[in-house]
Amino acid sequence: MANSYETGRLNLPFVGIATFGKRPYVADWGRIEAEVAVMGAPFDFGTQFRAGARFGPRGVREASTLFSFGHAGAYDHEDDATYLPQSVRIVDIGDADIVHTDTAKSHANIRAGVEAMLKAGALPVVIGGDHSVNIPCIEAFAGQGPIHILQIDAHLDFVDERHGVRVGHGSPMRRAAEKDYVSGLTQVGIRNVSSTARDGYEAARAMGSDILSVRQFRALGPAGVAARIPAGARVYVTLDIDGFCPSIAPGTGTPSHGGFLYYEVLELLQHVAQAHQVVGMDLVEVAPDYDAGQVTSVLAAQVLLNFLGFIFHAKGFR
Amino acid sequence: MANSYETGRLNLPFVGIATFGKRPYVADWGRIEAEVAVMGAPFDFGTQFRAGARFGPRGVREASTLFSFGHAGAYDHEDDATYLPQSVRIVDIGDADIVHTDTAKSHANIRAGVEAMLKAGALPVVIGGDHSVNIPCIEAFAGQGPIHILQIDAHLDFVDERHGVRVGHGSPMRRAAEKDYVSGLTQVGIRNVSSTARDGYEAARAMGSDILSVRQFRALGPAGVAARIPAGARVYVTLDIDGFCPSIAPGTGTPSHGGFLYYEVLELLQHVAQAHQVVGMDLVEVAPDYDAGQVTSVLAAQVLLNFLGFIFHAKGFR
Amino acid sequence: MANSYETGRLNLPFVGIATFGKRPYVADWGRIEAEVAVMGAPFDFGTQFRAGARFGPRGVREASTLFSFGHAGAYDHEDDATYLPQSVRIVDIGDADIVHTDTAKSHANIRAGVEAMLKAGALPVVIGGDHSVNIPCIEAFAGQGPIHILQIDAHLDFVDERHGVRVGHGSPMRRAAEKDYVSGLTQVGIRNVSSTARDGYEAARAMGSDILSVRQFRALGPAGVAARIPAGARVYVTLDIDGFCPSIAPGTGTPSHGGFLYYEVLELLQHVAQAHQVVGMDLVEVAPDYDAGQVTSVLAAQVLLNFLGFIFHAKGFR
Amino acid sequence: MANSYETGRLNLPFVGIATFGKRPYVADWGRIEAEVAVMGAPFDFGTQFRAGARFGPRGVREASTLFSFGHAGAYDHEDDATYLPQSVRIVDIGDADIVHTDTAKSHANIRAGVEAMLKAGALPVVIGGDHSVNIPCIEAFAGQGPIHILQIDAHLDFVDERHGVRVGHGSPMRRAAEKDYVSGLTQVGIRNVSSTARDGYEAARAMGSDILSVRQFRALGPAGVAARIPAGARVYVTLDIDGFCPSIAPGTGTPSHGGFLYYEVLELLQHVAQAHQVVGMDLVEVAPDYDAGQVTSVLAAQVLLNFLGFIFHAKGFR
Amino acid sequence: MANSYETGRLNLPFVGIATFGKRPYVADWGRIEAEVAVMGAPFDFGTQFRAGARFGPRGVREASTLFSFGHAGAYDHEDDATYLPQSVRIVDIGDADIVHTDTAKSHANIRAGVEAMLKAGALPVVIGGDHSVNIPCIEAFAGQGPIHILQIDAHLDFVDERHGVRVGHGSPMRRAAEKDYVSGLTQVGIRNVSSTARDGYEAARAMGSDILSVRQFRALGPAGVAARIPAGARVYVTLDIDGFCPSIAPGTGTPSHGGFLYYEVLELLQHVAQAHQVVGMDLVEVAPDYDAGQVTSVLAAQVLLNFLGFIFHAKGFR
Amino acid sequence: MANSYETGRLNLPFVGIATFGKRPYVADWGRIEAEVAVMGAPFDFGTQFRAGARFGPRGVREASTLFSFGHAGAYDHEDDATYLPQSVRIVDIGDADIVHTDTAKSHANIRAGVEAMLKAGALPVVIGGDHSVNIPCIEAFAGQGPIHILQIDAHLDFVDERHGVRVGHGSPMRRAAEKDYVSGLTQVGIRNVSSTARDGYEAARAMGSDILSVRQFRALGPAGVAARIPAGARVYVTLDIDGFCPSIAPGTGTPSHGGFLYYEVLELLQHVAQAHQVVGMDLVEVAPDYDAGQVTSVLAAQVLLNFLGFIFHAKGFR
Repeated sequence: MANSYETGRLNLPFVGIATFGKRPYVADWGRIEAEVAVMGAPFDFGTQFRAGARFGPRGVREASTLFSFGHAGAYDHEDDATYLPQSVRIVDIGDADIVHTDTAKSHANIRAGVEAMLKAGALPVVIGGDHSVNIPCIEAFAGQGPIHILQIDAHLDFVDERHGVRVGHGSPMRRAAEKDYVSGLTQVGIRNVSSTARDGYEAARAMGSDILSVRQFRALGPAGVAARIPAGARVYVTLDIDGFCPSIAPGTGTPSHGGFLYYEVLELLQHVAQAHQVVGMDLVEVAPDYDAGQVTSVLAAQVLLNFLGFIFHAKGFR
Repeated sequence: MANSYETGRLNLPFVGIATFGKRPYVADWGRIEAEVAVMGAPFDFGTQFRAGARFGPRGVREASTLFSFGHAGAYDHEDDATYLPQSVRIVDIGDADIVHTDTAKSHANIRAGVEAMLKAGALPVVIGGDHSVNIPCIEAFAGQGPIHILQIDAHLDFVDERHGVRVGHGSPMRRAAEKDYVSGLTQVGIRNVSSTARDGYEAARAMGSDILSVRQFRALGPAGVAARIPAGARVYVTLDIDGFCPSIAPGTGTPSHGGFLYYEVLELLQHVAQAHQVVGMDLVEVAPDYDAGQVTSVLAAQVLLNFLGFIFHAKGFR
Repeated sequence: MANSYETGRLNLPFVGIATFGKRPYVADWGRIEAEVAVMGAPFDFGTQFRAGARFGPRGVREASTLFSFGHAGAYDHEDDATYLPQSVRIVDIGDADIVHTDTAKSHANIRAGVEAMLKAGALPVVIGGDHSVNIPCIEAFAGQGPIHILQIDAHLDFVDERHGVRVGHGSPMRRAAEKDYVSGLTQVGIRNVSSTARDGYEAARAMGSDILSVRQFRALGPAGVAARIPAGARVYVTLDIDGFCPSIAPGTGTPSHGGFLYYEVLELLQHVAQAHQVVGMDLVEVAPDYDAGQVTSVLAAQVLLNFLGFIFHAKGFR
Repeated sequence: MANSYETGRLNLPFVGIATFGKRPYVADWGRIEAEVAVMGAPFDFGTQFRAGARFGPRGVREASTLFSFGHAGAYDHEDDATYLPQSVRIVDIGDADIVHTDTAKSHANIRAGVEAMLKAGALPVVIGGDHSVNIPCIEAFAGQGPIHILQIDAHLDFVDERHGVRVGHGSPMRRAAEKDYVSGLTQVGIRNVSSTARDGYEAARAMGSDILSVRQFRALGPAGVAARIPAGARVYVTLDIDGFCPSIAPGTGTPSHGGFLYYEVLELLQHVAQAHQVVGMDLVEVAPDYDAGQVTSVLAAQVLLNFLGFIFHAKGFR
Repeated sequence: MANSYETGRLNLPFVGIATFGKRPYVADWGRIEAEVAVMGAPFDFGTQFRAGARFGPRGVREASTLFSFGHAGAYDHEDDATYLPQSVRIVDIGDADIVHTDTAKSHANIRAGVEAMLKAGALPVVIGGDHSVNIPCIEAFAGQGPIHILQIDAHLDFVDERHGVRVGHGSPMRRAAEKDYVSGLTQVGIRNVSSTARDGYEAARAMGSDILSVRQFRALGPAGVAARIPAGARVYVTLDIDGFCPSIAPGTGTPSHGGFLYYEVLELLQHVAQAHQVVGMDLVEVAPDYDAGQVTSVLAAQVLLNFLGFIFHAKGFR
Repeated sequence: MANSYETGRLNLPFVGIATFGKRPYVADWGRIEAEVAVMGAPFDFGTQFRAGARFGPRGVREASTLFSFGHAGAYDHEDDATYLPQSVRIVDIGDADIVHTDTAKSHANIRAGVEAMLKAGALPVVIGGDHSVNIPCIEAFAGQGPIHILQIDAHLDFVDERHGVRVGHGSPMRRAAEKDYVSGLTQVGIRNVSSTARDGYEAARAMGSDILSVRQFRALGPAGVAARIPAGARVYVTLDIDGFCPSIAPGTGTPSHGGFLYYEVLELLQHVAQAHQVVGMDLVEVAPDYDAGQVTSVLAAQVLLNFLGFIFHAKGFR
């Protein structure tokens, strides 16, 4: 099929409404017909330092327009492949409704969105919001069969409870590990001091986690890390943008130096896409107001679009 | 009819896709059914100092969500009036297609958008882009009957030609004055040195302009200025955001101190809405990258929404 | 007594730990011995647009150092008065403990702080945080006798309940008006569309509110407005920084054009200090991350320090 | 003579080397041949809060290009006058050499620059730098006959000595008042608490100062204030940008709310230019790194160019 | 010869007019007498996402002052060499005249500047502006003998024509490859999706391009890549700053993650300088308004000055 | 002992007064009782390009709160160690008093602070301020026995005297090398052109310096570099933040590309802590106003806290 720029509009990146990748907006969650559905989860009451992740969905959408030139797919000369041909239908279903002051209602609305995407048979992609939005995302997978979680993050996020808080952004992996349909976790990028203390690490390992720091990841290489994910696992990926080095991801609430560079994560995700079934993903903690030059949002969009390309290329969409 | 927040979503300002006022997006310009249609014109090759007005439409749309609480209309306690009830249908038709390096094609696309809005019977609202986008806007009014132009601006924008340039952002009012269907101009806020020299002022007055500085405006008052517009005129309003004081509109390409404060413009527009038929408008030169704190985009959205409220209130929409 | 710069350190504004006004920090809330106690309430889950007010206390404290030259009091040549002599002891008691994801616990901790200040006989000054922090502040006044609330704000903040939310930043004045010890409200600066609809205004008036817009304030003048507060009332002042014009207060979550200029609020507060007993105050919605050039934090510090100066000058501290 | 844009280059503001007003750079201070010479004094070790005024000269020069359209003079339609015709030769002589850690040498170099400008018969215009650079400027006027100083500022700057500091930015007016050739001072805009205590005000008045706050200025009006300057005085103007309201001058080290708006200062300067001989000027405390949107630098350039226009228009340059 | 700081001024980086490297400004393009001439080309109508490269020349000039300490050459202890001794005369010839709205005239003016530099026998260095400015630069080399182009860039820039656009920033390498005096291209850093689709890559290779991604570059090493440039080639280097990683070059219009780190490019350029005759260069797409902390401009200045040092060191200037 | 979050407050990073690591503030320098004392030295008149390091102490303190979760020590899963248990008492003694315009007095006050910390037996940690503050720090070690200096920096800082300046930020290592109790220097990260010319390098080597560039460091590895420090040396570490790559340390006065990444410095410091007695440290040149996203301040805090952890872990504090 012809590129849009040949048949109609030039459609430069800075032109037009900023949906994700400039893809169609579907307001009716009962009528999602696509391979991929993208939803924003602009919730940030779960943060412990800087807020602002509520503007993550808008920021990532805006940045994603940079990669939306109206081509019939995205050609990658290194792989000699055209990713995301038009047969990979991607839709933007807007944002889950957030209720200020009320964490429970906000999380419930996020869960409902993921459930709608799953019901429609679309791959759910959730853009946070803080990492607590992962909690309702994982809850939506109840009854869908076992999943393995691949977390890319600076922080372990394995706090059980503190001052009564069980659903803040320091706890999602603990909440996930408690689910009987979560068969295991691979947690990579974990480093430095955070809200999880020693007992959290011990609990994680006891509950089935494989924890790797950035330096441990580097010693193994992307392929080596990917190989540690159990064969045949249905993989859910949760990507906290602070897993990356602050040099390319300054726009986040709790930056931590010593994080991943771009190709490390890209290659890990490419290996995962080739070897596993990816059943869902979220990308969280982008806070555009701290993102001078917009590089964090651009990173988020670039990683998401490439990962989606890898997934559907592996599935035979050419 | 019930407010949206009672029947469904809370829909806080930071939630959801950023169309203008979160109103519906209409991609098909042949199917505009609304009282008001809003189009972006993200063109900025006509600027003489700082660029960046290409992101004006996105910036104003984003800011406009602040005023979109999901109420059944906007209640103003000073006027004891509810503006923009749901009977005033507003749609966002996206952006005119811009072709980099090519001013003529870009302008032609803008003109086509305004023509589509006029054909649909909707009040055209164009968000720039630099002030040169006014040129195709006015061209679209050919054959629609005489119009009077009310310009709010720091600069006269009356350069005829310089180094061959006739359609830059220093010339729109000259181009407008040349049209036989432009019956006159009221140019307010004009001050300080700019790209128009003395001969430009003389030409403007010779071609039917009424030129007022900010201080002259203050001496007359908003009602006095509104009264200088010919009775019965069909008025097109072109609002260059740099007509405002840089204290509330820093985010623009060529700021000029000594500009209008908020109520001065608001009250002028309210008088115009009550006394005249407003047939179209553009708001130009918002450059979000220079707009720390987003106050300029908020100003643009606030003025546009209030002006639209005044216009349709005067027409009996309650 | 000698100025500190004569006896020891020069103590320039940029030097030293940033407590409020560089005054002593009192960690033990059972040992507050001062005329004035300042507490931060860094809670911002109640916001409906931009967050970031959690850094309001740090931002205002930092800016307050600009006005802390180590003089023996602050000389004002217009009033020929030295405000805040050393006999007015001001202490900074730090922040109320905030629990992420949990509005109820966070508010309870704020209330406990105000109760401690009241118990110590100090004038409580609370720096927000979003405007919802006013709710626990007012609750702390239970059993203290009747109070009249003077609100300076762009928004009426009189939403009763929406989607179950009763304690967000759109509701504090409603919650206050419900208290039997709140004898009335004077709400000034209210303008433009906001989260309060027409029925909110009607309810406010029915519950004893006197509502004035900025333009209505200007018609009356500061003295005229101050005179509308009932004689003899014990006045609690709640100052939402968005009551000011965005030109001087861009650093806030929901800016609204057309707000107050500096002297308008200063003179109102001076009149109130001279004619009434001020029993407490909060200043809310400063969001430093949106405050390029730090002018909003400087405004907040400047207003607070001057208001405290007026209050204790009226009480005879010279 | 023809405009430059007719004979050669269009020379848009964003094009070319940023000298002041894009005027010629004269490196040899022994060969200044001009009516006006502009020199930068990028010294900021005299500041007591935020530094950064060292980039004031570069910032003001860059902003001044906005007003340099290549016209044969700047036409002002309010005055129906063309200011700064080409007969008013303006040159930029670069910056005084600054020696880090060494206040005395840096000040001496500034003094040498002003002496060179005076020797050449050019009107000296110095762009700071912090307000301490006024000290060597005034020293350079020794032996030139009596001068009266008009200071526009938020702060009195009349500290005699503190911790041994006599030449910081809190002392220039005290240093000036001590000179036998300084016949008096008019200090306007002075407000709020600052580094000068009560005894400083008393000393200033005793040494011949006329001190006016912003509100006192407003009561008198620009003409009324100008009339308080002794008839026949040779006037040196020192303009601290923080004399302006932070809404239009956020980019400065010690902002103070309640300052002047644009026309107030412009009209005062116009009156002074018409009634007095202006013998020199400095504009200080512009700190571009705090100047989001560049509005402070634009203000500085706009005021300087207009003031120069008024001065030479009054002298008969048309 | 003695350093300038011994004979006259200390000349700290923040002091003085910001020409490139604080070198002399030559306004008369007929009188260029230097080994190197630097010209700005502040044109950005060719951009497809963020504009602002028009301020690239000013930004790079300002940053270049950081490396202008007044030494007699720049000593590099790693190479134990003093680069850029005073015998390497560098002049700044200002900017090509840009005509807003008119791409053809603007490009023609850039071409004229490069022709003037070539005619004078100076090595032309052009600072963009967007990458389309490379088109007139290459045109100026007509009749100068064959050249080989080394492009460092994230994007292939090989679009032939789209919507009539042939001279935007997505096409310069296609336009160059069409020239009969361009003997070949080496394009390094190319990665990820861009405006060039698969057919563009095929065309490039067919027209003589050697295309290398960042990862392919890393596998070869800088020396290995340099060795792929034909022996004896006269090399023109075009450096799009987005070839670098956004971590060190965020200030650009279309950032792309996964780019070069500093030493990779530095060492490639050093190898090229040692093995080839460099006949010209441009450095494009620096957009200072997106460059928080000024690191992109500093990078551009640092690379240019080092590359010039390598070139003339290889030529025997010591 | 229990964590603070179990016994009392949750104490999230954004809550509370920003002392270093939220540790106790000790105002009386005669009563320091701690293993570590932290003092700010907010002096920046010694800078040669951008100022602003005066806000370094406040910036680093604020960022340090991110790492202050109230745990009983900081657990590092890579080392399986808990660093900084409560037995390592850290206090913040505030800032040395700075006297504007007066370098000598300011430096003397810094020296007095370090002397007080040494007298109390606490490890002195000084946060600058520009690198000239190292001069009084080293002076305070007079009479304490020999020390070896490990400098991490982009610049050699070995200027003897220029224009009379001997104590600017280009000279501290020269001043240190002159001390008879400084037994040697290891200077790592040194690169590119700076204020030190060739003769400075020669002098440094003659006076006992071991100079390594970043690339030379990489060839040796952190352990290899640490091994070059003489066995048994008492090591003072001076860390100029510009030793790091601008990608992670943009917020500094004189950024230089090609600097260290995080783990390089971290591992060097860990080796030093394990093999040597660290007797003091300073971290200088953080300039928060150039630090978009706060990543430089976060880096400084993260490095300091980890280094302190390594030091006391090596001493047996577990």
